[in-house]
Amino acid sequence: MNPYQAPLTDMRFLLEQVFDAPNTWAQLPEIAEMVDIDTANAILEEAAKISSELIHPLNRTGDEQGVLHQDNQVITPDGYKAVYEQYSQGGWIGLCGDPEFGGMGMPKMLGILVDEMAYSACNAFTLYGSLTAGAALCINAHGSEALKQAYLPKLYSGEWAGAMDMTEPQAGSDLRNIRTRALPQDDGSYAITGSKIFITGGDHDLTENVIHLVLAKLPDSKGISLFLVPKISVNTDGSLANANGVSVGSIEHKMGLKGSATCVMNFDNAQGFLIGEPNRGLVCMFTMMNYERLAIGIQGLGSAQAAYQMAADYAKERNQGVAAGGSPTGSESDPIIVHGDVRRMLLTIRAMTEAGRALSVFTGQQLDLAKYAQDEVKAKAARYVGLLTPVAKAFLTDRGLDATIMAQQVFGGHGYIRETGIEQLVRDTRIAQIYEGTNGIQAIDFLGRKVTGDNLAALNEFVADLKAQMRAFTHVDAVKVAAVCARLDALVIVAESINEHKVAQPALINACAVDFLDAFGYTLYGFYWLAMVDKVADHEDKVFAEQKAYLAKFYFDKLLPKADYHIAQVRAGDATTMAMPAEFF
Amino acid sequence: MNPYQAPLTDMRFLLEQVFDAPNTWAQLPEIAEMVDIDTANAILEEAAKISSELIHPLNRTGDEQGVLHQDNQVITPDGYKAVYEQYSQGGWIGLCGDPEFGGMGMPKMLGILVDEMAYSACNAFTLYGSLTAGAALCINAHGSEALKQAYLPKLYSGEWAGAMDMTEPQAGSDLRNIRTRALPQDDGSYAITGSKIFITGGDHDLTENVIHLVLAKLPDSKGISLFLVPKISVNTDGSLANANGVSVGSIEHKMGLKGSATCVMNFDNAQGFLIGEPNRGLVCMFTMMNYERLAIGIQGLGSAQAAYQMAADYAKERNQGVAAGGSPTGSESDPIIVHGDVRRMLLTIRAMTEAGRALSVFTGQQLDLAKYAQDEVKAKAARYVGLLTPVAKAFLTDRGLDATIMAQQVFGGHGYIRETGIEQLVRDTRIAQIYEGTNGIQAIDFLGRKVTGDNLAALNEFVADLKAQMRAFTHVDAVKVAAVCARLDALVIVAESINEHKVAQPALINACAVDFLDAFGYTLYGFYWLAMVDKVADHEDKVFAEQKAYLAKFYFDKLLPKADYHIAQVRAGDATTMAMPAEFF
Repeated sequence: MNPYQAPLTDMRFLLEQVFDAPNTWAQLPEIAEMVDIDTANAILEEAAKISSELIHPLNRTGDEQGVLHQDNQVITPDGYKAVYEQYSQGGWIGLCGDPEFGGMGMPKMLGILVDEMAYSACNAFTLYGSLTAGAALCINAHGSEALKQAYLPKLYSGEWAGAMDMTEPQAGSDLRNIRTRALPQDDGSYAITGSKIFITGGDHDLTENVIHLVLAKLPDSKGISLFLVPKISVNTDGSLANANGVSVGSIEHKMGLKGSATCVMNFDNAQGFLIGEPNRGLVCMFTMMNYERLAIGIQGLGSAQAAYQMAADYAKERNQGVAAGGSPTGSESDPIIVHGDVRRMLLTIRAMTEAGRALSVFTGQQLDLAKYAQDEVKAKAARYVGLLTPVAKAFLTDRGLDATIMAQQVFGGHGYIRETGIEQLVRDTRIAQIYEGTNGIQAIDFLGRKVTGDNLAALNEFVADLKAQMRAFTHVDAVKVAAVCARLDALVIVAESINEHKVAQPALINACAVDFLDAFGYTLYGFYWLAMVDKVADHEDKVFAEQKAYLAKFYFDKLLPKADYHIAQVRAGDATTMAMPAEFF
Repeated sequence: MNPYQAPLTDMRFLLEQVFDAPNTWAQLPEIAEMVDIDTANAILEEAAKISSELIHPLNRTGDEQGVLHQDNQVITPDGYKAVYEQYSQGGWIGLCGDPEFGGMGMPKMLGILVDEMAYSACNAFTLYGSLTAGAALCINAHGSEALKQAYLPKLYSGEWAGAMDMTEPQAGSDLRNIRTRALPQDDGSYAITGSKIFITGGDHDLTENVIHLVLAKLPDSKGISLFLVPKISVNTDGSLANANGVSVGSIEHKMGLKGSATCVMNFDNAQGFLIGEPNRGLVCMFTMMNYERLAIGIQGLGSAQAAYQMAADYAKERNQGVAAGGSPTGSESDPIIVHGDVRRMLLTIRAMTEAGRALSVFTGQQLDLAKYAQDEVKAKAARYVGLLTPVAKAFLTDRGLDATIMAQQVFGGHGYIRETGIEQLVRDTRIAQIYEGTNGIQAIDFLGRKVTGDNLAALNEFVADLKAQMRAFTHVDAVKVAAVCARLDALVIVAESINEHKVAQPALINACAVDFLDAFGYTLYGFYWLAMVDKVADHEDKVFAEQKAYLAKFYFDKLLPKADYHIAQVRAGDATTMAMPAEFF
């Protein structure tokens, strides 16, 4: 099997041509100062190299060995620590971090491409750095100046790692019920006591310290506040002091992601520091959550890309049967890529993955604009980030699982045995549909808050924007534009109807949300395929341009129509979903 | 978590009311002699008890321990051997076996319900007996009288086990390439030499002997012949003689099914006996394959049923959030069954599973008629078995995986950790889409051989039959009948079109087969829901009748429309699937 090879041509094409990074960056002085397209391309090339050569070799052994919990310590698989050090020293963890505190200040639309490569190479390893970058983002956005100075440089450098401590046994999707308490201390800090479960990277041996962002309640308060709780306390000069009251209760044994430590964390009068305002912890945590939700979408995308490569390589090498109508080479046995059903699976994975990459770069671009642009450009980008984050998280991860399952099917019986590695991808990527808010929760956030929450203002703005762009395309087929527009209109109509009935039928949003999100996703990918076709016409790599044309045709022929099924589901409403009494289940 | 509880009410309802077993059996003297409906119900009750109390406790530990290969022996997990003995002694392995050789002579439409329960209880354990029953079926159908007398009693009693040795490294879906050779010996036996891979139950410690059905080639022949090759040679009096030249090369480490031994088998001048005619091995093997294909469909169905029960129990016990529009009990937190999205997943699993059970009982009934009826009834049933076997295998297992994935999603984060057991079901059932012919192969068999192979004769006959039955239903909504008829008509139209173009467009069948099978499956389930609604109207258990009514409404509202998407896919043909050159993948 060939090792992972990053799809650099496609990444550059999206960055430069489809989403015009040079022009975007030119308008953002803070970005323009740090990066131009040549630097960006050099970063992509280096990330590709590191992903293939450094990170990917950890993937299989990490799955076989798993994480150990012994003598109250969590030990990562062989090789993780050495690679993590190299990765940190390369500046990859602080890639998009604030330069004031040692980050490299790179734009997110570049960073998510780097993330995708790392996730393709190894899901489990990449989470540690991703959570660290997310924690740093949250501290930078909401922490005091003192906290920023004490913690950010060490997080960006990778010397310390970050973790996100939200879930408790009785409080998963519904965080109102958390019981972890924070008692104010005379020195202005808080004593944190409670237990958290499912804490990714809650402890490990990759770094000398782990910085926990912990949700807890102040005395006599129902509100939730956010606290920074280091595993090892930190002196004012930044050096390490004593162990804090933070310990690992156990680690979970999971379906996959075995190289990633999922910990039960116990806080016993641990010293913590308030981040943001009291009782506003969820708002602060959402800075991290939105970042992580996109990152988890990228996990799904990276898995899909890796799955595609493995399955396509296999399909070109494995001979079974001859092509229907006779072998094209007159051979007694052809590679299975000649078979229509194998092609159907591979084309589906690839057409979905390449459109998914467009969605991820676009969302990254909007994050950059929301952070670095001014006035209305900034405000509009923030609206788009709000609208698209749940879509990117849910749709990229749902299609990520589909992709790994289809790729496994291409391998036949060889896909079920551990040796070929594809079954590991299925197991590793499955969690992405669940954590950081299940995909059901994402869909309810999308339809309930982002679409109908503002009476379709953001959706209408976004749809109008897509239509205006399509009118400006010069290399696309008008019939395909009409096909996308028809679905966009249908989406707006069902969204209007739900908005109208949401008070009288309170279950409507919850019952229809997943189908609405799926319908939106398939429609949006239609738009991205048109955008790619429009921009690829002048591409210097003619094979690349031809591939895009073939994939776009397949997408419009076979995949866009899935939107209609999901729209029909939404139209059918919630009546039959809600009717059966609970005790009949 | 509640242990597995067999859905006995539904099983009896299908057997007695929907498919009228008493009347079917009354017309088949060989069956009528062995069983009546009261005996059948007693068998179902006993099977339910054994599945819950005896087999299910093996499920988790078998996954944790797995199968060992040491000192050239395969060792099953703790408890397997004792339970297998008890299971064998209860007569369950020979349940549908020929009474002349010690089988219990029960009808298949009863046997598949027993199989479903056992698969729900433990996928891995149940395979051993299923392969044994399949091997016995093949020997009984094609073996010489001497082979039958020597082997069948020991197989039916469970003292010996069966295995099916087809695949070689270079010959999976395409068996033409097998290299295992059979040299004729002076005594009329054959010396078998070669290696087979992916042999389920190829060796284990459950029985004193394993009887292999091995595909091999005679000298100077391209044809494939079938041989019976015992692990331990058997004396003419049926006692065990010396070890035959059969050994285990290794066992596979797999995604799941860890309690089931998947072996590399080496045959080194092993003594084998021809089954059936020389060079007609595939035809003989298909007797076993068709049996196994239905059995593997039942594996998918059993997993779906188990997944439903686990997820429904969890959804009624796990509190998170309150119902949209306010808690029905005024509570601060409701069981998650109140949420529309959770209901959507549970209703989908259950509506698909109950229709799937109808498909499986119907297919079992047709197998019985094809075996025990006379003349045209027999011939017609054989045509239906041919038509429906690939559908039952592929559609039940594809929906089986969907079910386990959705059930896992209901568990949220708890679904990803091993403790809750639902992730094991995902891993265990995944193989069912692959082995015994991948679901792609099933679909090509269905559309290419069963539907267009006879110019739609069997399909048209079956469709006319469904329509005639629907006209006779008295308790169903005409709109729903029309909805099923519309899809049946659409299926026939696209099948006619494919049949017309299949020579000019040789890739058409391969490229469209999976969507055609899915469209057929969703449509057929619509018919089964109508059949169930029609017959449940007079059911004495009013809650059961109400549940069926709710599920049928959900099915027509939300699931039947999936057929349209798949029909549209078939209509779109093979152009965009086949266009891209292989090297562009």
